[in-house]
Amino acid sequence: MNTSNSIGIVSAQRAHFDTPLTFQSGAVLPRYDLVYETYGTLNAGKSNAILVCHALSGHHHVAGYYADDPKNVGWWDNMIGPGKPIDTRKFFVVGLNNLGGCHGSTGPSSPDPETGKPYGASFPVVTVEDWVESQARLADMLGIRQFAAVTGGSLGAMQALQWSLSFPDRVRHVLAIATAPRLTAENIAFNDVARNAILTDPDFHGGNYYEHSAVPVRGLRLARMLGHITYLSDDVMADKFGRELLSGKPNYGYGIEFEIESYLRYQGDKFAAYFDANTYLLMTKALDYFDPARKCGDDLDKAFAVARANFLVLSFTTDWRFSPERSRTLVKSLLHNHLNVSYCEITSTHGHDSFLMQHTHYHEVMHAYLERIASEFSE
Amino acid sequence: MNTSNSIGIVSAQRAHFDTPLTFQSGAVLPRYDLVYETYGTLNAGKSNAILVCHALSGHHHVAGYYADDPKNVGWWDNMIGPGKPIDTRKFFVVGLNNLGGCHGSTGPSSPDPETGKPYGASFPVVTVEDWVESQARLADMLGIRQFAAVTGGSLGAMQALQWSLSFPDRVRHVLAIATAPRLTAENIAFNDVARNAILTDPDFHGGNYYEHSAVPVRGLRLARMLGHITYLSDDVMADKFGRELLSGKPNYGYGIEFEIESYLRYQGDKFAAYFDANTYLLMTKALDYFDPARKCGDDLDKAFAVARANFLVLSFTTDWRFSPERSRTLVKSLLHNHLNVSYCEITSTHGHDSFLMQHTHYHEVMHAYLERIASEFSE
Repeated sequence: MNTSNSIGIVSAQRAHFDTPLTFQSGAVLPRYDLVYETYGTLNAGKSNAILVCHALSGHHHVAGYYADDPKNVGWWDNMIGPGKPIDTRKFFVVGLNNLGGCHGSTGPSSPDPETGKPYGASFPVVTVEDWVESQARLADMLGIRQFAAVTGGSLGAMQALQWSLSFPDRVRHVLAIATAPRLTAENIAFNDVARNAILTDPDFHGGNYYEHSAVPVRGLRLARMLGHITYLSDDVMADKFGRELLSGKPNYGYGIEFEIESYLRYQGDKFAAYFDANTYLLMTKALDYFDPARKCGDDLDKAFAVARANFLVLSFTTDWRFSPERSRTLVKSLLHNHLNVSYCEITSTHGHDSFLMQHTHYHEVMHAYLERIASEFSE
Repeated sequence: MNTSNSIGIVSAQRAHFDTPLTFQSGAVLPRYDLVYETYGTLNAGKSNAILVCHALSGHHHVAGYYADDPKNVGWWDNMIGPGKPIDTRKFFVVGLNNLGGCHGSTGPSSPDPETGKPYGASFPVVTVEDWVESQARLADMLGIRQFAAVTGGSLGAMQALQWSLSFPDRVRHVLAIATAPRLTAENIAFNDVARNAILTDPDFHGGNYYEHSAVPVRGLRLARMLGHITYLSDDVMADKFGRELLSGKPNYGYGIEFEIESYLRYQGDKFAAYFDANTYLLMTKALDYFDPARKCGDDLDKAFAVARANFLVLSFTTDWRFSPERSRTLVKSLLHNHLNVSYCEITSTHGHDSFLMQHTHYHEVMHAYLERIASEFSE
C-alpha cells in the first residue's frame, strides 16, 4: 500500500435519524441509521463539500484506511486524498453507506426495532430518489446546504444525476462517471438473472435466511460471477486470462480449467462471504427503476428541465455495460436544457471497471475539472 | 405454420454403432446410437449430400414436421425444403442428434448397458472432434464418402470447420455461419456461470439426478436465461421489450416487472422442462475446448493448412457472442492457405440468433452459394 498521498487513518461515523422516511414505494421507515466517513475540512462558508455516492457493492469507506485494519483501503482511494483529483486539502468529502446496504447503515440485515429480528424480506425496496432524500438529510445534519459536487460511478452516478433533479439548488456540479440515464432491456436482463440466482437458492428462504442461520451463497456467487463479466471488457479478459488452462492441458471434466474460470469463482466466493443477498437484490432493483424520463413521458430533455447544476460526464470506450453512447444521450439532453456540460470519452481497455482504476487521462480530466470547482469557492 | 414449401412429414431414424469410439479425452464408448433424419434423395453418384450440424440446444429434427405432431417443425425449416436455400429437390440433407445429446442419441441420460442405469456423471466429455468422428461413421453407414457441404451455425459451424480438418477429402464445401475459430475468455466466462448454476443446484446430485428422481431445474433455467441474453442483441432487446412494465407501473417488489424478465423466465422454464442438464454441461465444454489452433502453437493459419474445402463464412453485424471480427480472423487464415473463401457480413438486428431467422439477404446469399454447389454435381 502506498500511503504517501493517502488521507491516512479514517474512521466511520454513525448518524441516527428519527424522522420517518417515506419511500417512492409508499413504504415508511420510521427511523434509521446512516454510516458515513468524512475526509478534509468543511470550510467556513460550507461551500467545499463533495458527496461521493457508491455503486452496487460499494460503501462509506471511500478513502484512507482504518487504524486497526491498515489493509482495508477505501474503494476510491486512488481518486481521493491530498494532491489527488478530489484533493482533501481543498475539499470536504462525504461518503456514506446507502440505506438498504450491508455495511452499517440500516438495511435488510439490520434488526427491525418492532420485532428485534432482521428486516429480511420486509425491508422496503429503495430507489435512487429515496437514497438522495436520505443523503440530503445527512447533509442537513452535517450543515451542508449545497454540495460543491456530487459524484460517483455507475449506480453512484445515477444518484449524482438524481441530486440535480431532486435538489437542483443543493448541488453546483454533478460528476457522472460510467453511467446511463436508465438501464436498457439487456442491463435489466442481466440483473434479472442475478436476482433469480439468489431468489431460487434454497438457502434464500424468501429473504428471511437470517432466521434460518443460512446464507444463499450459491446465488450470491453466481450473481457476482455474472456481474464481473459485465464489468470487464472482452479485450481486458482476453489480455488478462486469454484461453490459458490452469494445468496447461484440457482435463475433460467439469472442474475449473481455464484461468478465467478460476478468477470468476474466486471473485464469487469472496463476495458471497461478506455481502448480503437482500442488499444485492435491492441494489439491482434501484438500478432497474432509475429512469428520470419515465415521469416525463419518456422525454429525457423534459426530465432535466429542472436541473441547475454544471455537469461533467465521463464514459469509457470499452464499457459495454454503460456504453459511451448512453452518456452521449445524457449529454444531449443536458445541452438541450442549456446546461453547462463537459463530456469526455476516455480510451480505456478496462470496461465498466475503468471508473475505479488509476488511469492517467481519466484522473487528469477529473483533476482539471475539480480544480475549476475549487477555484469557484477559493476566489 | 406455412407448409407450402415444407419438406412435409419426416421421421427420425436410429443407427446403432458397435465399433468402440475413443474420445479425445481417452474415454471409450463401446457402443452407441445416433438418431438422425434425412430429407431429399441421395443421387446415384452420392455427391449431393449435405450434413447439418446442430448448435447447443439443437437436434436431428432440422426440417419438416412429424405426422403425429405437426406443430413440431424442424429448427432450420426456413432454410431447408423444396425451393429453399438448401433445396431438398437437389440435395440429400442429413441432420443428427450429436453424441451426448438428449434427443435420442446416446448421452448422459441414456442407460449405460453395463449398469442399466443412466450414464449420468460417467458419460465422457465430448469434443467437436469426437462429434465429427461419429458423424463420419454415420456418413459411412449412409454410403456417403464425401459431403457436398457440411454446415451449421454457432457450435454447429465449429463442427463444419472441424470436418475440413479431420476429413479434408470428405467435404467439398464448409458453410460456417455465426461462428468463431475458438471461444474468447468472455465466451468461456458466460459458459462457466451457466455451468456453475447447474453444478451447484442441490438437485444436480453430482450429475446423477436421474437416480434421485430430481431435475436441476433452477440451474438449467438460469443457464438458459443467461444464454438468451447472449443470443440476442442489445438493439433487438430494446426493440422487443424496451423498459415496458408488465403492469404499467413499478411494483417495488422482486416479482416479474419488466417484459424482458417475463420473456427470460418463460424461455428458462420452457427449456428446463425438456433439456437434460448433463447435456447442457457437455455442450458448453465442447464449445470451450474447440480450438484448432491450439495443437499448432496457437497458429490458426497452420491449423487450416490441411484443409481442402471451399468455404462460405457468414457473420451478423449485431452478433456480439461471435462477432464479425471473429469470422474475419477465420477468413484471413483460410485465405493465407490459398483456400477458396466467400465471406459476407450480414446486416441484422437479431444478434447471434440471426442464423436461425428468416432474413432475406442471408437467405439470398445461402441460396446463391448452394446453387453453385448444386451446379458442380448436376453438370
